[in-house]
Amino acid sequence: MKKNEIKTVEWQDGAVRIIDQTRLPGEYVLLDMRTKEEMWEAIRELKVRGAPAIGIAAAMGLAAEMDRSRAKGFPAFYRELEKAAAYLASSRPTAVNLFWALQRMKELAGRLRDQPVAKIKEALVGEAKAILEEDRNMCRAIGEAGDALIMSGDGILTHCNAGGLATSGFGTALAPVYVAQEKGKKIKVYSDETRPLLQGARLTLWELMHVGVDVTMICDNMAAVVMKQGKIDLVITGADRVAANGDAANKIGTYGVALLARAHKIPFYMAWPSSTLDLSLASGDDIPIEERGAEELTTFAGVSIAPKGAQAYCPAFDVTPHELIAAFITERGVIRPPFGKNLRQFARPGH
Amino acid sequence: MKKNEIKTVEWQDGAVRIIDQTRLPGEYVLLDMRTKEEMWEAIRELKVRGAPAIGIAAAMGLAAEMDRSRAKGFPAFYRELEKAAAYLASSRPTAVNLFWALQRMKELAGRLRDQPVAKIKEALVGEAKAILEEDRNMCRAIGEAGDALIMSGDGILTHCNAGGLATSGFGTALAPVYVAQEKGKKIKVYSDETRPLLQGARLTLWELMHVGVDVTMICDNMAAVVMKQGKIDLVITGADRVAANGDAANKIGTYGVALLARAHKIPFYMAWPSSTLDLSLASGDDIPIEERGAEELTTFAGVSIAPKGAQAYCPAFDVTPHELIAAFITERGVIRPPFGKNLRQFARPGH
Repeated sequence: MKKNEIKTVEWQDGAVRIIDQTRLPGEYVLLDMRTKEEMWEAIRELKVRGAPAIGIAAAMGLAAEMDRSRAKGFPAFYRELEKAAAYLASSRPTAVNLFWALQRMKELAGRLRDQPVAKIKEALVGEAKAILEEDRNMCRAIGEAGDALIMSGDGILTHCNAGGLATSGFGTALAPVYVAQEKGKKIKVYSDETRPLLQGARLTLWELMHVGVDVTMICDNMAAVVMKQGKIDLVITGADRVAANGDAANKIGTYGVALLARAHKIPFYMAWPSSTLDLSLASGDDIPIEERGAEELTTFAGVSIAPKGAQAYCPAFDVTPHELIAAFITERGVIRPPFGKNLRQFARPGH
Repeated sequence: MKKNEIKTVEWQDGAVRIIDQTRLPGEYVLLDMRTKEEMWEAIRELKVRGAPAIGIAAAMGLAAEMDRSRAKGFPAFYRELEKAAAYLASSRPTAVNLFWALQRMKELAGRLRDQPVAKIKEALVGEAKAILEEDRNMCRAIGEAGDALIMSGDGILTHCNAGGLATSGFGTALAPVYVAQEKGKKIKVYSDETRPLLQGARLTLWELMHVGVDVTMICDNMAAVVMKQGKIDLVITGADRVAANGDAANKIGTYGVALLARAHKIPFYMAWPSSTLDLSLASGDDIPIEERGAEELTTFAGVSIAPKGAQAYCPAFDVTPHELIAAFITERGVIRPPFGKNLRQFARPGH
């Protein structure tokens, strides 16, 4: 794995270097972001995507932006920081990692209020790098936890891309796959193409093929039939936001896959780092769901696939109710139902 | 409706004129087919598609081909006819209407064995035209039967295109929609885009918008969430082949939609003309399922969407087990479970 490691986000001489994921799998393009506006646009346009990667990118984007600040004293510097953080937080409404990472950066600056501004700037860069390093370790830990659920010979279905390209390391949903492969288990992954933006076809295929995992693309509407044919032993997806009762928001289509898995008695798992859990939300009903423009459905790669003026409905996420989820896979182990109790316990300080 | 009627297949001066459906919705192109090879390719490449339209096109293609025959006596003419029919039957393996229409043409010729060849040629053209006219009447009758299941205010989900473009008239799955609209019912249709070939986005949207029905496109993977949001009151799809026990083959993705409808307690209907029923098949296990090439998935609107060399699995159809089907809508009324008994009765001569 190491030799093929994917550097989704990294700090590079005062800039944030990202792989432009809207260009994959056709082209491999690296972009350097130096301003909050560049980073906002990159997040908004899904050049960098996946909850953990967005968090890292936003933290690094904030560090890069503040590094160029001309503020002399702490109050002016902190006002700028708060404004930049609020602006970056507005780039995507659903990803809690984004808010979490920016909050962490603000809290660090607050703790260093008595330090010279230059020192705070340096600390912010260090903190953003630490978020990345922690994420790498977290992905590995998720992989180790999830690997225990995989047997050699298993067929694994995944939806969207919650792989290395969504994080800084092994990914979340794909981390168990990478660890299982490392340990010599023979596995076969099926990847939903994941309309409308085809992250499964473009990104999951790309990274699994890159690392030599046996992966087969299907259309989203083929998930039911491959399950019925006995090709799927377990489903693993990522999650963008998990509520206190275990309801979980993820890429549009995930809820349907979970229902189909239930109908075929196939365990449905969601893998996520602990920052995805948001105990302030009682249930999935409290998770705001982003809707995107009709043209995201009606055009593809610049080609119109529907009649001119067609109406389209385009929710970017859906919520999978906790009853459909067999277990969560986290960096601190596997969490099984009852989720209400077990997620509260999981979130306790020092757990 | 009449003024906007869609002439999917028609007989035009010794040729079969079809709308090239691979060019919709961007371009409206009419093609004239004169040989069995041209028609085989048109069916194979889905320029004409939908079980009833394929049957009409194949019968007309056979009539056009035989019209040019130089055979002098019946035996030579019939040998050519059989060969041409077998060739046309090989264009698509799943659509039973194709076999049915060609068989009907062969039987007609057989009955006229004592007539001059010129007379038989004329009769074949007449028979193909009759198949079309019967189909138009049949679609209307399906629409009348299905309309009884629709209430004003209903949201209706459909998958693929089993509309006027799949037949010669109102279509099958969309016929109840057209009749309900004619009767002044207020309805809202949701159309799955239907990957990989996007018949829903390209064709269902096109024809419903053409006739002024309120239609909204969704991705296949959004069906579950629109059901959960209460937007869908019933699902109507077509069917390509129905077995004796009520298991039914239809466009890939239909089985998944039926499972999702069941999970949301939404009635799932399939509309088809009686020629779709094949009592020689005991169950869905006996229905041969066509698999298509990986490139049908890995390219989208001509653009490559997966890495070079990606594996893809591409079944063109799936089978919906009869337990998930609330009722069938046919030109002879609505058929409810138990399907084993009721389909046998439906198929009885004189029923």
